[in-house]
Parts: sequence; structure tokens; C-alpha cells
Amino acid sequence: MNYLFSDKVKDMQPSAIREIFKSLSDPNMISFAAGNPAAASFPVEKIRAISEQILLTDPTGALQYSVTEGYGPLREQLKARLRDKFSIGTSDDELIVTTGGQQGIDLAAKVLCNEGDTVICENPSFIGALNAFRSYNAKLVGVDVEQDGINVEKLEQALKDNPNTKLIYLIPTFQNPSGITMSLERRRAVLALAERYGAVILEDNPYGELRFDGEDVPTIKSLDKTGTVLYCSSFSKILSAGMRVGFICGNKALIQKIVVVKQVNDVHTNIFFQMLASRFMEVYGLDEHIASIRALYRQKSALMVEALEEQLGGILEIVRPQGGLFIWGTLPDKYDSAVFAKKAIGNMVAVVEGKTFMPDQSAVSHSFRMNYSTPTDEQIIEGVRRLRKTLDDYDA
Amino acid sequence: MNYLFSDKVKDMQPSAIREIFKSLSDPNMISFAAGNPAAASFPVEKIRAISEQILLTDPTGALQYSVTEGYGPLREQLKARLRDKFSIGTSDDELIVTTGGQQGIDLAAKVLCNEGDTVICENPSFIGALNAFRSYNAKLVGVDVEQDGINVEKLEQALKDNPNTKLIYLIPTFQNPSGITMSLERRRAVLALAERYGAVILEDNPYGELRFDGEDVPTIKSLDKTGTVLYCSSFSKILSAGMRVGFICGNKALIQKIVVVKQVNDVHTNIFFQMLASRFMEVYGLDEHIASIRALYRQKSALMVEALEEQLGGILEIVRPQGGLFIWGTLPDKYDSAVFAKKAIGNMVAVVEGKTFMPDQSAVSHSFRMNYSTPTDEQIIEGVRRLRKTLDDYDA
Repeated sequence: MNYLFSDKVKDMQPSAIREIFKSLSDPNMISFAAGNPAAASFPVEKIRAISEQILLTDPTGALQYSVTEGYGPLREQLKARLRDKFSIGTSDDELIVTTGGQQGIDLAAKVLCNEGDTVICENPSFIGALNAFRSYNAKLVGVDVEQDGINVEKLEQALKDNPNTKLIYLIPTFQNPSGITMSLERRRAVLALAERYGAVILEDNPYGELRFDGEDVPTIKSLDKTGTVLYCSSFSKILSAGMRVGFICGNKALIQKIVVVKQVNDVHTNIFFQMLASRFMEVYGLDEHIASIRALYRQKSALMVEALEEQLGGILEIVRPQGGLFIWGTLPDKYDSAVFAKKAIGNMVAVVEGKTFMPDQSAVSHSFRMNYSTPTDEQIIEGVRRLRKTLDDYDA
Repeated sequence: MNYLFSDKVKDMQPSAIREIFKSLSDPNMISFAAGNPAAASFPVEKIRAISEQILLTDPTGALQYSVTEGYGPLREQLKARLRDKFSIGTSDDELIVTTGGQQGIDLAAKVLCNEGDTVICENPSFIGALNAFRSYNAKLVGVDVEQDGINVEKLEQALKDNPNTKLIYLIPTFQNPSGITMSLERRRAVLALAERYGAVILEDNPYGELRFDGEDVPTIKSLDKTGTVLYCSSFSKILSAGMRVGFICGNKALIQKIVVVKQVNDVHTNIFFQMLASRFMEVYGLDEHIASIRALYRQKSALMVEALEEQLGGILEIVRPQGGLFIWGTLPDKYDSAVFAKKAIGNMVAVVEGKTFMPDQSAVSHSFRMNYSTPTDEQIIEGVRRLRKTLDDYDA
């Protein structure tokens, strides 16, 4: 049979990161390409204890169909945490549990975007979100990220040029892949623009709890008095990525529509792990565990920064991370990061070339993303050496 | 802010079944409205043992990000089971794990349907699928289900009338809600029509393993030599509904596209429960457990049939189930099942009125769906008494 795919998906390809992973089966390959949390960050003993308790005390609740909105106690705990830690949540807001943060992004796009509508995003941005928007045939418009975050003048120009902009997708804190945190001033300016032009901001904050240096900056959602911001995040980077539990919060009208669409997407999120996350928060709290992850990532990021400075100082310009999982490196203009990343694979080290993260796939990038949460300390040292060798090969 | 929802979702409402559930909080209400498996069907002890083993032997594998296609060993086990039990699977076919059967339906619609394209479905059909198709703004065309399954002449007429039909959605075995199983002759005829008119069949078979009477009929997928059929099912009715693990299988080209779209939907399905399903199949096998579920449902369905015959014999025409979870009852033409169902709630028994399952929401139905897997035996007896009282009230 000859398959006619829908217009929205017919040109979609597996993400480039995914393709890189296929070359990672060689045990000698050092990967800085992943976006995985460190395996050491999973609180295995506590999860085992809670799992057993759930299956002893409420097996039917954990194994039966549940409600689309999510496990009631977990929703209340998340609302309380968002309120206490991030000043998020008004009486007009609601929160639902999603199947990872990714589902929140997908559903937000689905409820707001017709085919051809514009989604403005940071340039560069998270590939999983860009592809979700592409899968609804949205037009992607990238606005450059600078040291203080998205360029506000260019954002306004993009809004003027694209009157059918439905969504502005932002990762304001420890942006993926650039590592940049948007300043409070720019957050305010971006929110004001979104309000003026009638576009919803989707604030994605998966790394917000992982600050190991510097001062927290208020979330855009905490500044929102008009229901302009949808805020999504997940347990993937602070408890377990494989359990696929995230959440999205925003104005009730938006959330109610997202619930209806989630219902036909997967009925509800795995209820066992919703209960597990809830009991983890109740019994152990998240703060102590998150503190241990921060300490781990502080150490690993410092190690990678030090190695990069030693091996590539003065050539590779890096954004020194204050949190999150990534270091963004930029080579001088004469280097194409697509070529560099390919040569790096030849030297048995994997990074993700910058173009992967760009809304405009015809652009050339001089940057690439490195992850420090997954490799061992030895791999970080040796992998950076291989990057140096790759640069020498490039020059040769 | 004034929200402009996308055309495809703007008219979507929570499903009527969901709304019924809100009236079920009263402990005196007897519900025949659910589609839940019996809580007694969950093999809690075995799940507890396997959970503990997984978190002892491979905690990182169970808690870390995984691949979109699904857990390798589980995919192989599912392919083997489909091949051995259902003669499904050719060298051109592939199988991926989905977040419940529902996600398979959603993704199939997304990859195949543009807005305005036609999805032909049985009339009546599963509300979760109908709403998934609606959420992509597909045009739903219902074709009546008869004693032997979908009316083949009407199906051909619908295909002629709707040249942009991309998908024919069928639940050939223990159809939800009608309980009807399509004859082999009609399965062959339907497949031939789909091939001739170039539409993909989505064969949904969540109840196929739950036959407790009569003989198995080959799946449509087992007859498919041309890659015309996508086949989806899940563990929801045979292991646990809350764990949200299903699968979809079909021609590689279709499955590859579904993988790309699933990746941006939820990255991958909860990996812990994929491992759990795999180890359950490996250690205990599914057959013995499924045999116990069949025995349970045989007893409960017989009890409900007997009660219905005693209380409503000669008035309510029922489809006597040979498997699955439901009994479909049809009242004489003078009764509107929407009115009946509302009066039933007043008598503290909940059923789902027939219109809920109809592609054409302006139609009137004289039928309603009753579930026997969830209520206790006492509730079945008493609930049917209340249905009799409801009929008397209607007549009064």
C-alpha cells in the first residue's frame, strides 16, 4: 500500500540527537550528547521502599484507570510547591499532570495552533519542542538568545511580522541548549509583549530546580496577572526521567481544554508513578534530594569547565553554567559545528551540533552542546581531550 | 486573556462518560457505566515481586530515559505472542510500545489525517477513539453495526461518498459498545474494500484475549498481505489499566512515522512498566492469568444476563456477550436512551446512553451500555432491579 501521510507529519524525521545515539553503542565512545540526568541522581532505595508500600496499601488505586487531570494529592502538592518556591498560581489557575514535560508542550501546541500559525521560539531551542510544533505544521520563527536571554526588540519585530503568532515558547532558566538564564528585566518585557500581541507564553522550566550557582530569577509565570503564561515542568530531572511524570499549569480555561485533549491522547498519566512522586514528596520531601543533585552537577560542571579551559581556552567560547545539564560552546566563525561534530565522532566523542537546535534548518552554526550529567569524571576529562584533538584535526 | 483555541479542538468537550462519573461519588450509586477491568483481575502479588526485582537488578534502566520504540525485550515478546496467537506479523511489519492503546489510536490519526479528511467508524463505536479523531478535525462517518459486524454495502457506499477517507476504525471483536464480533466473511470483505479504496484500517483489539464463550475469529490484521491494517491493543484489560502500556503494529513505513510523532508526544512510554510487563510474560506467562480473568468475566456476564432476562426479558433486547466487558441493551423505539439513562441516575444506577457512542451526535438512540466487570455480584443484581424500576418510571 502507498501511504499518504498527513501534511503536518509528512516531512518529519527522527531527531538528529536520536541519530547520534545510534553511534553510541560503541563502549569506547564518550558521549556528551545526551540530555539524561545522572543515574546517580535517582533515589533508588527510597523509590523501592515507596513502591513496595504503594503496592501493599493501595494496589487497586495504583493499577486501575484513573482520572485525566492526575492524582489529586500530587496535584495539590505540586500547586503548593509552585506557590511556595516560585510564587506561581492564582485562583484562576489550574494544574494537571502530564506524561512528562514533553506532553505538556505537545498539548499546548495542539490546543492553540492551527496549521500555518506561528510559534516563536528562542534560537537555539529544545529540539523536542521544535519538533512538537512542527508536528502540528506550525511555522517556527526563531529569535536570537543573547547573554541576558531572548532579544526583546527582535521578539517584538517577530510578533509584528507574524500576526498569527499563537505561542511564544521559552526556556528562561538554564536554557536548553544555550545554558543562558533570561534576566528579570527581559522576562517582564517579554510578558508585556505577549500580552500586547495576544500570544500565549509557554514557559518550560525543567531545570529550574537545578541551580548550583548564582541567584534565582522569578519565573515569568510568577509575574503573570493576565493568564498569558502556561508553565510546564517535570520530575524527569529531579526524581526519574523514565517514569514520565510532568505537569502543566495555567489559566483554568486553557487547562480544561488541555485536559480534554489529553484524555484522547493517553487517557491519563501512569498512576503508579504519580502516587510514587506524591508519597516521595510527602515522606522525604524533594529539597534534600534536589540539594544532592545540585552538588553533584556543580562538581561535574566545574570539572568540565576546567577541562575545556585547559584544552580549548581562548578558542572555544563557553557559557559557564549556573545550573541545568549543559555547556554551550561556540567556535570561531571559520568552524562549522556540523563538520566539527562529525569529526568528533571519528575521535570517539559525541556532542550535539548547534544546527540541531535551530528553527531554521538551513542555517550554519558554530556552536555545539555538551552534557556533563551523564559521563563519568574520567570521561569528562578524556572526552574534552578528544575535542581538542578534533579541533586540531579540523585545522590540519 | 481571550484564548483562541485551534479549530480542531475548539468544540471538544469532556466525554459524556466522564461527566457521568461525577455523579458516581455517591457510595449508594451502582455503576454499570465504567469500562474498567475488575480490580480482582490485577495480579498484585506477582506485580509486587517483579517490581522489587526490577528495582534491585536494574534500577537505572527502570528510571532513566529510554528509546521511543519501546523496551526491546517486550517488543520481541509481543511480536512472538501476536505471531503465535493471532498469526500477526510479516517481515514488512514492525511494532512499537504506546502509552496505552489510546495513544496508538491518537498517533494513527495524527500521521494519516489532515483536517477535513474522513475517518469511517462503526456506529456505535468507542468514544475515546471518536474523540481522538475529532481532535484532529477529521470528519466522522459512521456505518451501522449489525449482528455480523459492520454493514459491508454501507461501508462501500461510505468509501465512495468520501474519497478522502484515510482511516477505517474498527473494533472487530467484542466491539465497544455493541459487544458484537464481526464474522470472518465480513472481515475479508472489509479488508478488500480498504485495499480497493486505499484507506488504512485501524483494528483495535483490546478485548480479543477475553473470550469466554464461542470460537476465536481471525483478526483482520492476520488476513492482511498488503500492509493495509494497523493493529493496536494493550495490557489494560489483561494486566493493569493504570500502567498505560499498549502497542501498535503494522507496516514499517507507518510505524516509523508513528515513532517520530510519538517522540514529540511523550518521548517514550513509562519504562518501568514496560520492563514489568516483559518480566511478567517471561516469568509467569500471560495465559494462566488471562484464563482466570476469562473465568471471572464469564461468571459476571452470565449473572448480569440472567438478571436482565428476569427483570427486563421481552422488553430489553440484549447482545449476549462472548467476551469483553460489556452488555449492549436496546429498548423498544418509544424509549430514548438519553432520557432513560438520566432517569436511571435518579434511581441510583448508571449506564451509558447509546448516543455517546455515535459519530452523529444529533441522532437518537434506544440503546445503552452496561458493564459487568466492575460491579460486585450484589450490585449487578440490585442494579438491574433499579433498571427495571427505571423502565416502570419511564412508562408511568
